Amino acid sequence: MEKNWDVIIVGGGPAGLAAAIYCGRALRKTLVLEKKVFGGQIINADIIENYPGFAEPIVPAELMEQMGKQAERYGVVLENDEVANLRREQNSWQIEVYKNLYTAKALVYAAGSVHRFLGVSGESELLGRGVSVCATCDAPFFVERKVAVLGGGDTALSEALHLAKFASEVVLIHRRDQLRAEKILQERVFKNEKIKIIWDSEVLSYRGDKKLEALELRNKKSGNSEIVAFDGAFLAIGTIPNTGLLKNFVDLDENGYVVTDISLGTAAGGLFVAGEVIKGNRRQVAISVGMGVQAALSCEEYLAKLD
Amino acid sequence: MEKNWDVIIVGGGPAGLAAAIYCGRALRKTLVLEKKVFGGQIINADIIENYPGFAEPIVPAELMEQMGKQAERYGVVLENDEVANLRREQNSWQIEVYKNLYTAKALVYAAGSVHRFLGVSGESELLGRGVSVCATCDAPFFVERKVAVLGGGDTALSEALHLAKFASEVVLIHRRDQLRAEKILQERVFKNEKIKIIWDSEVLSYRGDKKLEALELRNKKSGNSEIVAFDGAFLAIGTIPNTGLLKNFVDLDENGYVVTDISLGTAAGGLFVAGEVIKGNRRQVAISVGMGVQAALSCEEYLAKLD
Repeated sequence: MEKNWDVIIVGGGPAGLAAAIYCGRALRKTLVLEKKVFGGQIINADIIENYPGFAEPIVPAELMEQMGKQAERYGVVLENDEVANLRREQNSWQIEVYKNLYTAKALVYAAGSVHRFLGVSGESELLGRGVSVCATCDAPFFVERKVAVLGGGDTALSEALHLAKFASEVVLIHRRDQLRAEKILQERVFKNEKIKIIWDSEVLSYRGDKKLEALELRNKKSGNSEIVAFDGAFLAIGTIPNTGLLKNFVDLDENGYVVTDISLGTAAGGLFVAGEVIKGNRRQVAISVGMGVQAALSCEEYLAKLD
Repeated sequence: MEKNWDVIIVGGGPAGLAAAIYCGRALRKTLVLEKKVFGGQIINADIIENYPGFAEPIVPAELMEQMGKQAERYGVVLENDEVANLRREQNSWQIEVYKNLYTAKALVYAAGSVHRFLGVSGESELLGRGVSVCATCDAPFFVERKVAVLGGGDTALSEALHLAKFASEVVLIHRRDQLRAEKILQERVFKNEKIKIIWDSEVLSYRGDKKLEALELRNKKSGNSEIVAFDGAFLAIGTIPNTGLLKNFVDLDENGYVVTDISLGTAAGGLFVAGEVIKGNRRQVAISVGMGVQAALSCEEYLAKLD
């Protein structure tokens, strides 16, 4: 395996693969490192309807496979490996992986974010089969259905209000007896006749065979449990950006997201960012792809000056 | 024709159509106004290889047709009409078109930019047939060919250097006797053995039947003309953003581009921007699409607060 690269891209989701296509086309020796499966979180979804360019719904795993092949067409190497450490030394980046050490003139960091999950029974099995982490993406699948939203913050309430335009009934399930969200969102939720709230409750398990059928809930005050039928359940308890490796190099906000401008550059020389590690990104494939392209072109501008 | 809309999108290129898909899916009554042909400038190109999601080259006109149909699938109306004037009145936008007046609660402004062209004989006929406005897009088509780059600024020199990685010979044609570009780019151009410069010269015409074969050049000092064979000619004499209508509402930089942050909002209430009107955008379909999605989601956040 080659040790020295022009560009190493950390993360093989939509942002990383889009960046890879452009770095490859700029004839840069480019390696993409992905610790899980190439394609990113979106490949867990059954279909995607909102990636611009496809009038009919498509299969996310196929879309992302095309993106990977498109990068390889331009000579990019895709490698499954987890980055353990990053170091900046003499105008070059040292990238430590499991059993190897690479160098790169520039880095595009697109390691994404992870949803907070409850980690209870049925959750991973039913993800994409009634259990969703994105109302913007999946609301149109729940026309005249009954859905739950888990959470009590701005995202949870925004998703509940969005879902109420499609679903017949939306139940917000919150583990406390008051909401954390903006007051204006709270008012709108309280006024919306389609939205009900179950207070002081947590989800003990997701029930259903091939798709979600019900949630097992427990009231934390009374201790009573019950099984309640639902067609959909939207997790909105937050996300965590994969930015631990960047701490020493760039400004992170209080939640760990990278603060940057439209160039997608950072204060660290030769370090560019894209996708869901960025503050203000709204977790859509098209946004991450666009940012991947923008980061790759900023990266190319940087490399061209070193040539 | 309906007069009152939730969202009016100005511009039916990649940014506008991507925004339309998301506004439609948020169940907003959405109208897209395009003064020329839906799909934007990219439909002038024969193929596109760098829109992520397609391992094989595709036809841009077909990609953009899919994007238009995808927006219509969610109830968006696409209308050919030119915006003559914008006014902000009582929390609403008034959009004056040729023979009509619309209102909208929010605007997504994605009217794009236009390349400066020379306006000489053969230029429009051979555009996409050897005449190009984008080296990033088209350089790989000119492996071992002889190409011209017209211009003397940063873009022209960057494109010349990029093209030199593919072409056998790159000739920079500049109408002055010195370059305007950054010194580091000039040094690199002077050092590159593949790049030659023709000074003090302008292009009088593009020659060729079905594709570009030669340029007619005139030396402005001597007055002499000559015909020089080329396989490609890259125009790099600048772009002009279509932002005249925004002057009274947002901050524009000295070249007329909108200055904004990652949210793609503006100082004007309910006005969002996307695509090539934005300072720092690098004129790629994927970047404009990603920005269209981001602007639509910022717009939806704004509208949700008005509901």
